[in-house]
Amino acid sequence: MAASQREISISEFFAKNRHLLGFDNPKKALLTTIKEAVDNSMDACEEAGILPEILVEIMAIDGQDDRFKVAIQDNGPGIVKAQVPNIFGKLLYGSKFHSRRQSRGQQGIGISAAGLYAQMTTGKGPEIISRVKRKKAHHFVLQMDSTKNKPMITRDKELADWHLKHGTRFECTLEATYKRGKGSVDDYIKQTAVANPHASLTYLAPGMEEPMVYEAASKIVPERGEEIKPHPYGVELGELIKMLRQTNSRWLSGFLKEDFCRVGPKVAKSIIAEAGLSEKSYPSRIAREEADALHRAIQKAKISSPPTTCLSPIGEERILEGLQKETDADFYAVCTRPPSVYRGNPFQIEVGIAWAKPGDDHLDVDGDGKITKIKKKKRGTFDTENLLGNADDAIRILRFANRVPLLSQQASCGFTKAAISTSWKNYGLQQSKGSLPVGSAVILVHMASVWVPFTSEAKEAIAPYDEILKEVRLAMQEAGRKLGVHIRKGKKISSEFQKRNYIDAFLPHVGIGLQEILKLEPEVREDTVDMLRATLESTRKI
Amino acid sequence: MAASQREISISEFFAKNRHLLGFDNPKKALLTTIKEAVDNSMDACEEAGILPEILVEIMAIDGQDDRFKVAIQDNGPGIVKAQVPNIFGKLLYGSKFHSRRQSRGQQGIGISAAGLYAQMTTGKGPEIISRVKRKKAHHFVLQMDSTKNKPMITRDKELADWHLKHGTRFECTLEATYKRGKGSVDDYIKQTAVANPHASLTYLAPGMEEPMVYEAASKIVPERGEEIKPHPYGVELGELIKMLRQTNSRWLSGFLKEDFCRVGPKVAKSIIAEAGLSEKSYPSRIAREEADALHRAIQKAKISSPPTTCLSPIGEERILEGLQKETDADFYAVCTRPPSVYRGNPFQIEVGIAWAKPGDDHLDVDGDGKITKIKKKKRGTFDTENLLGNADDAIRILRFANRVPLLSQQASCGFTKAAISTSWKNYGLQQSKGSLPVGSAVILVHMASVWVPFTSEAKEAIAPYDEILKEVRLAMQEAGRKLGVHIRKGKKISSEFQKRNYIDAFLPHVGIGLQEILKLEPEVREDTVDMLRATLESTRKI
Repeated sequence: MAASQREISISEFFAKNRHLLGFDNPKKALLTTIKEAVDNSMDACEEAGILPEILVEIMAIDGQDDRFKVAIQDNGPGIVKAQVPNIFGKLLYGSKFHSRRQSRGQQGIGISAAGLYAQMTTGKGPEIISRVKRKKAHHFVLQMDSTKNKPMITRDKELADWHLKHGTRFECTLEATYKRGKGSVDDYIKQTAVANPHASLTYLAPGMEEPMVYEAASKIVPERGEEIKPHPYGVELGELIKMLRQTNSRWLSGFLKEDFCRVGPKVAKSIIAEAGLSEKSYPSRIAREEADALHRAIQKAKISSPPTTCLSPIGEERILEGLQKETDADFYAVCTRPPSVYRGNPFQIEVGIAWAKPGDDHLDVDGDGKITKIKKKKRGTFDTENLLGNADDAIRILRFANRVPLLSQQASCGFTKAAISTSWKNYGLQQSKGSLPVGSAVILVHMASVWVPFTSEAKEAIAPYDEILKEVRLAMQEAGRKLGVHIRKGKKISSEFQKRNYIDAFLPHVGIGLQEILKLEPEVREDTVDMLRATLESTRKI
Repeated sequence: MAASQREISISEFFAKNRHLLGFDNPKKALLTTIKEAVDNSMDACEEAGILPEILVEIMAIDGQDDRFKVAIQDNGPGIVKAQVPNIFGKLLYGSKFHSRRQSRGQQGIGISAAGLYAQMTTGKGPEIISRVKRKKAHHFVLQMDSTKNKPMITRDKELADWHLKHGTRFECTLEATYKRGKGSVDDYIKQTAVANPHASLTYLAPGMEEPMVYEAASKIVPERGEEIKPHPYGVELGELIKMLRQTNSRWLSGFLKEDFCRVGPKVAKSIIAEAGLSEKSYPSRIAREEADALHRAIQKAKISSPPTTCLSPIGEERILEGLQKETDADFYAVCTRPPSVYRGNPFQIEVGIAWAKPGDDHLDVDGDGKITKIKKKKRGTFDTENLLGNADDAIRILRFANRVPLLSQQASCGFTKAAISTSWKNYGLQQSKGSLPVGSAVILVHMASVWVPFTSEAKEAIAPYDEILKEVRLAMQEAGRKLGVHIRKGKKISSEFQKRNYIDAFLPHVGIGLQEILKLEPEVREDTVDMLRATLESTRKI
């Protein structure tokens, strides 16, 4: 058995487990590929302070209905030639993993995984054209060696000219299915536009006569969140030991002040005293037991929350705008919570609710206060035209992490768990135990953080950390209360009407029964039924 | 920006994303650590044809209520000295990833991730004692260098004596929470015993006066599934190209016959002809377009299903035994489906159902055929004593993959999705749309496969491949039909009883209303009510 033990490359691992990266099936593979490329494009533009102009194109291939060519192009700063092969052809390579800064990408896996999937299914590796300002554009074609997790360059050519002064274009041919509706690329593009009003998106897919254009609604690039040092509360013992070994500080007190955020001389002093160590200890000579004491002292110390200048929320105003633009609702409520912290990582939660009166038994009151039933309102089912569902469906949740829509794995997402454990009945919505509330409504949830804890590499759902669940619930409650006030009055009239319906349905049968039993005349029966109705209605609680 | 681009080691990646591996919180970390170690122990014993005798111990540490020491010890064949550091101290290293054989472990991540988590949270690396037959035992203590994904050996000592002739003991100290109940280590050990009647498990946890012993109920080591070659249908174009480059066969026809299962000379000939290639082509010289044609020809060819000798199901008899031993149910049904295939991987689904009559409005018929209401039966809520839930709770699903219980991520598991999309109403159970059925019952689902597609590295849920969902549904339907036949008669009596209850609740109020309206005497009212009751009851459909 010993002989067969061997190393597994990360590319082989993900090729065999590609559903972990969001390539479960041809439909999702198309979405994931586009999502990863758009994430990178948006990040690149914003890092460079450029308003993103992004082109997404899905092209049919003649005679092959199970393969598509996709292209994603941005007006970002471009990528220097030497970095292109690694960024696009090597898994676990990138600039965002080691930095504590809010960005869409974080793992350094996504775009190379898309190229790997394309190559696995069609044999063709990805093509990249990229141009840095004042340089020529370069055209690369890559093949990935999955056994070694290394890119092989099969073409590397300088282009005499390219239509963009700076930017990047990523192309690949992959096995895919293109469908519309919930969880589709169309849906993703629409939701991306909602959460990124500063980006302009041009989207062309098979069957469209002309591209769909989402114009930028804002001319301001969102402020780039600052990079922050780790917060002491969020650093585990193992990490602390590693940091002690790698620090440039010569003294323990310097280490605490320089390598963490929110540690001043006073805090450093008190931590070191509590741990029974000396301020002049050499960090690299701290033994495991001493580090353990230091770690425990840190947990006991009073340290202020990490700075929140690193966060870039969407903002209540923009969320409201986005919801109003994309839904035909009767009521909107939004809430941006103050920043909070989980495992030392600052984060911030925002919630928006759009709600429409139920269409099928929609009631209105006329000038005399009389109830008039009005005709059923038309509400779209889940589609890209109207995000609101039907009145008797579970409410739809639009989930976003650092402005990226999350389209899969809703059931296992912390946002969904928080919505389920919120008592929506208090705010006038129907809800069964352990389920989402029901109604023609949509709840938008956004988490901004320097490190979003996804439940898988595919970045489809948020891991349910308690601190995050709590913040989402608080935001939902705040928006929910506003909704409840709005719904309450309409609701009373509606349930009153239903009660009367039951009486109407039930009384004639009682009348017939009584007539037979008491041998009543038809007129007496009618009178009795009328009086019974009056009696019952007078006892109704309005 | 270019300067900050760099490589990310797989250990760093998982340390930062440890929830991906099942280390979300201290409770789950304890479970995952034990699960990974027991998986390895069981696999090692079975590979060597040894009946597993496994010891699991959770030890409290004096004065530290947030840390525990765990030890998992087996009587397996032991591990040769040179392999110990890599197996326990390097992520993505192992023998199972590249083999197509049914086993519990498959990724080469689990046990080293457990050690990494221990080191991250307590600074202490894992300890291993292992002994191969006729050799001395070796004692290792490791530290993991997560930046390089490499083990560092901090102790390597030959032991003069050890109490086992062969076997392995894994120990680590980790930040953890020990709790009982659903999803606990206790629960895991119990479910492991259900699915592995050939293993004997001894389990000791804090608070237990003496170890809990699950004796082996069978003396037969399950037949070890054979290793199989890939099936042509399951190989993607990219993989095919890689295989063509790496094959030892000199001719294309030889390549097809030698490197795949189920390809004989006739099938090989027809595939090559369909692809327009020559049988004598050199595999390594096949171009991408030719490989594409070959791949398409393979999909068109008629090739028999992969051999199923590689699968080792639990078997209907053993599932029944397991359920009977661990549940106090009134009815049991089991079903082992014939093997099937997804993406070229053979797999087999088994389902068992245990059902108990509802306890709270439990009805029985006495000798004269009269309905007698009997007192509420006591049913445990989810605990380790009785796996059945309450009559008004959603049914519990016990999920197993290659005999390993899956305790988390139930909502996102393909097994759950299959159960939700099965019409349990047809089989006499209550079920709301989009939900699990309700009842005091448990459904056991087992998947045996050479490659189980988990939704995450933590191996907690099955990815919902269509072929798998279909097989699970078919098995549930088969067991469900048996259950339906059993439930149906009891159900009729129960709903008849409920109807009568409605009449009883409703008539007195009608009587009072009538008395007021028609000015009836009390006796006339009583008579009227009695006659009304008789009339209504005679119209009931029994």
